[in-house]
Formats: sequence, C-alpha cells, structure tokens
Amino acid sequence: MQNTLSPKINHPTIVVFAADHGIAAAGLVNQYPQAITAQMVLNFIKGGAAINVFCMQNDIALTVVDAGVNFLFDPALPIIHAKIKMGTSNYLYENALSTAEVNLAIEKGKNIVTNLADAGCNTIGFGEMGIGNTSSAALIMHHLMQLPLTACAGRGTGLNDKQLQQKIDTLQAASDFHQLQKETFSLYELLSKIGGLEIAMMAGAFMEAAKQKMLILVDGFIATAALLIARAISPDILSFCVFAHASDEQGHRKMLQHLNVQPLLQLGMRLGEGTGAALAIPLIRSAVAFINEMASFEAAGISGKE
Amino acid sequence: MQNTLSPKINHPTIVVFAADHGIAAAGLVNQYPQAITAQMVLNFIKGGAAINVFCMQNDIALTVVDAGVNFLFDPALPIIHAKIKMGTSNYLYENALSTAEVNLAIEKGKNIVTNLADAGCNTIGFGEMGIGNTSSAALIMHHLMQLPLTACAGRGTGLNDKQLQQKIDTLQAASDFHQLQKETFSLYELLSKIGGLEIAMMAGAFMEAAKQKMLILVDGFIATAALLIARAISPDILSFCVFAHASDEQGHRKMLQHLNVQPLLQLGMRLGEGTGAALAIPLIRSAVAFINEMASFEAAGISGKE
Repeated sequence: MQNTLSPKINHPTIVVFAADHGIAAAGLVNQYPQAITAQMVLNFIKGGAAINVFCMQNDIALTVVDAGVNFLFDPALPIIHAKIKMGTSNYLYENALSTAEVNLAIEKGKNIVTNLADAGCNTIGFGEMGIGNTSSAALIMHHLMQLPLTACAGRGTGLNDKQLQQKIDTLQAASDFHQLQKETFSLYELLSKIGGLEIAMMAGAFMEAAKQKMLILVDGFIATAALLIARAISPDILSFCVFAHASDEQGHRKMLQHLNVQPLLQLGMRLGEGTGAALAIPLIRSAVAFINEMASFEAAGISGKE
Repeated sequence: MQNTLSPKINHPTIVVFAADHGIAAAGLVNQYPQAITAQMVLNFIKGGAAINVFCMQNDIALTVVDAGVNFLFDPALPIIHAKIKMGTSNYLYENALSTAEVNLAIEKGKNIVTNLADAGCNTIGFGEMGIGNTSSAALIMHHLMQLPLTACAGRGTGLNDKQLQQKIDTLQAASDFHQLQKETFSLYELLSKIGGLEIAMMAGAFMEAAKQKMLILVDGFIATAALLIARAISPDILSFCVFAHASDEQGHRKMLQHLNVQPLLQLGMRLGEGTGAALAIPLIRSAVAFINEMASFEAAGISGKE
C-alpha cells in the first residue's frame, strides 16, 4: 500500500458515522428505540462507549460524524456536523433517500477523509452507529450478493427468534416493494432505495481512503456492506483493506467469503462503532514494527541452514 | 482468575526459556545448526528478535532464561542463569535427562515465576528457543495424546517434505527406543526420556503461575506441549490460561482441540519466542479496559429495550 519496505502508521483514526433509519421508528426490525442513536453519539463525546475505551488504550484518534441522526445536536459539540437530514425515510413505503441526498452523503464522506489525510492520517477505520442499520446492510447484501434475506438478516443487537423472523418478513416486504431481487440498478439508486446515510457516507469515505492510498481497517457487518458498495464503484479498493474482525452477525462471514478475504480477529463481538477495527490496530503496529525493527539473521550474527 | 469485577494487568512479562537438544547435533530433525540457540539468546539481549520488537511495542517486560543452552554465557549477561546442563543427551540412544535434572528444571521454573509474582507481575506468557525442540514437543504429544508421529511432527523452522519424513523416521526410532507408544510412565519419567530442559522448566513455570493465580498466556506448539505436562500434574491449570495464538506448526491445532480451547489469534506464525503470547496482550488489555472503563447504558443515559 505504501510501496516501501519501511512502512509507517501515522495518526491512526477511527471515524464513526451515525445516522437514523426511518424503518426503526416502528420497531419492526429493532428492539432498541431510535433515540439510542443520538444518545450514543453523546456517549461517544463523553468517552463512555466501547470505541472510546479501545481508542484511548491504543492511542487512536476518534472522530464522530453526524451523517443524519434524528436529533439536533448543539453545533458546539466536537463532532463533524454533516447531517444530510433527520434520518432516512421509511423504505417500506418510499425511497429512503433522494439520489441528490445519496450523492451529497458520498461527497461528504470523501471530504471527511480528504481532511484527515491532509492532517497526516494514513491509517483509518470506519465505524457506525444507527438503530436499524443492520437492516439496510442486510438489504444491500441481499441485492448485491443475490442471497435470500434469511441468509443476510441477523440478530443485530440481540433479537430473539420471533423478532428475527419479524425482521426478515419486514425486509422481504421492503425487498418486494423496491424489486431488489429482480431489477438491477446503480449503486446510487440502491442507496436511494434503502439507505442509510451513514452507509452512503462511509462508502464515500472508503473510496477516498483508497484514493489516498491509506491503510483501511474494515470493521464489521455494516462497514462491510458500505465497502461492498464502494468496491462496486471502485474495484481496486480491496488492495488497501485489512479486514479487522469477523462479526458475530451472521451475514458478515458470508460477505468476507464473497470478498475472498480473511479477518485478522474472530472475537465474536457484535458491537459496531468500529470496535473491531480499533482492536486490530496493535496487530498492524506489530507487523510494521516487525519489518522495521527486527534484526535480520545476518545482522544478528545468526548461522544459516546447514 | 482474579475473582473481581475490576481486574488489573500488572507488569505483564514474557519469559523465554532457552535450551539445547542432543538430538539436534546430528541434524536429523533440524535444518538449522544447534549453535543458533545460543546466538538467539545473545540476539534477545541485544533486542534484535521478534519477541523484543513485540514486547517493546506493547510495554511488556522480557526475561530470558538459560535453562540449558550448549554455550557458556558470560555470567554478567542480563539473563537468568538457570543452566541445568549443556543441553539434553541424545534421546535416540539414552535418556535425555536424569530424573534429578528434570526435578531441578521444574523447581527452577517454579522459582522464576515465584520471583516475578513477588515483584508484582500478575500476567505472564512463556516462550522458548531451542533448536530441535519441536521434536521433543512432538514426542510429548505423541505419548500423551496417543497419536502417531505423522500427526504430531511438523515442519519446525521450515523442513521440506524429505526432511520432514527424516524427522518423523528419527522420532519413530526414539519412540520405539523409549516405548512411548506402549508403556505408561510418570510425567517426570517422560521428560527424563525425551526432554527438553526448556520444556521441563516451562512446565514448572506453568504450575507455579496457576498456583499464583496469574493470567497465563499460552503461546504455540512447544509451550502447549509444556502445558500438557503441567496440566497432567495440576489439572486445574487451564482455569488460568488464555490461548494466545494457533501456530502454523501442524500439531498445535490438534493440541488445542484436545484441550477444547479456542485461540485468540490465528495469524499463521511459527516463530516461537513467546511471540503469539506477546501479540495477545493488547487484546487482554482491551478486555480489562472494557470491563473497567466503559459506561453502562444506565450511567450513559441510554434507553433500554422497548
């Protein structure tokens, strides 16, 4: 990626994109209320979330982006205020976003990464927060990988069997409404149909990070759904990706198999927030230290094979 | 392990036990010369090995022990001078060690850990360096797990197919000589027959670490062979073990399955030196930080399930 035998990790950063999903308001695909998305953004600022703990421990910068949370944050809060709108529309009955909103989200995602690269960051991971966003990710997978929703939808934050079946039935209705199984459309149209704003912005961020030749740490199910979109637009993006962690969310392993990649970690987490990406950074630092600092057999005066 | 909801990682330490194996002098099971064991000990002191790099990066103390290297180190060198003898005898023709030497090695291993515990260390990993020691580990596995040597012996530092077959044939001759497939004997007798000194000392270290209720990070193939011995003597030892990394050495996965444990990392390394244990320490720190520092939903003002 850096085209050197002396690679460097500079200012590693996790960017967490937060946004809401119209589908979540009815509670058909989620057991936690939509209000949690905003509450968790405030928790990120206060330093109380898992991603805060892991970033603090591992000396990783954390940037939180309001991509479209259904809450008006105080403009003085130390987040990137990139709200497109107050969450997506409910894709059971209408398009989640206009194509103009999709384009705007992708552009904002690119700009966020451009600014980080300009500030010296060359290693980046993306996380997300958005009640209901495993549903958009499952629909993206369903369409792009042509798999039934039973193979794509998972338990999210912990649905029981009955709730999972309700989620699958709801997503099947959305799939039927938007003809996700039968029609082909552009990636922009796909995002317009089923969202979400954090996924569109993250897809733009992935594209720009690869363009900037950054080392990209790919987190879990939702981040990989955004990557599937970014890769369909920019096929060479995988050359810059390290897959950090295999999520416990059932669709994620199928995505990784589809991409023919191996995750660094398999810890059974399903936290989102970029937590898997953050946990992989020490291993990346080890690999970089290994190539830069370990003595060769020759330099250390070690005998060769007999 | 610590019987608390506020666990702490204090002075994490990797102890590397180095010793030589009589079998290695003839080059029947190894392609690198025996002299490398001593050269690598000197390299550890100079800071040039992989384990140095990983310990430096992750703020882990490193202690190197001469358990029986075939080289007289300057007594002023900053290693633990615990040499039992100048390597084991060649177990193709005689016992590798006397039972008195085995007992002494185990006692020294215990004492090393007692001293570290007294100095405040509560998290420990063991590594090893010893040309030929995958052969002793394979013989231990062969006897304790009752598997054929084709399932136990691996490529070590990189044997080709022909060299691997020669290693298996040589170890089969040793197995026949010592009746490893037919007889039962004490663990002390087993170590006496096939060594090695670093494995015996590490087995004692494992036993003492569990007695001290330390968090024990178990490294790769040779360390797990030492653990198999320690566990046969002290069955509750597994309660204090975290399995750090699945080695690329073929027998290691079978050992992990035998113990019914999952490794934290699967990076395909075959480095020894405790490198897998060192790479797992940041993950352990993350788990500890997670339980100590993350806000609860209640504390962070997050809504519950609907």
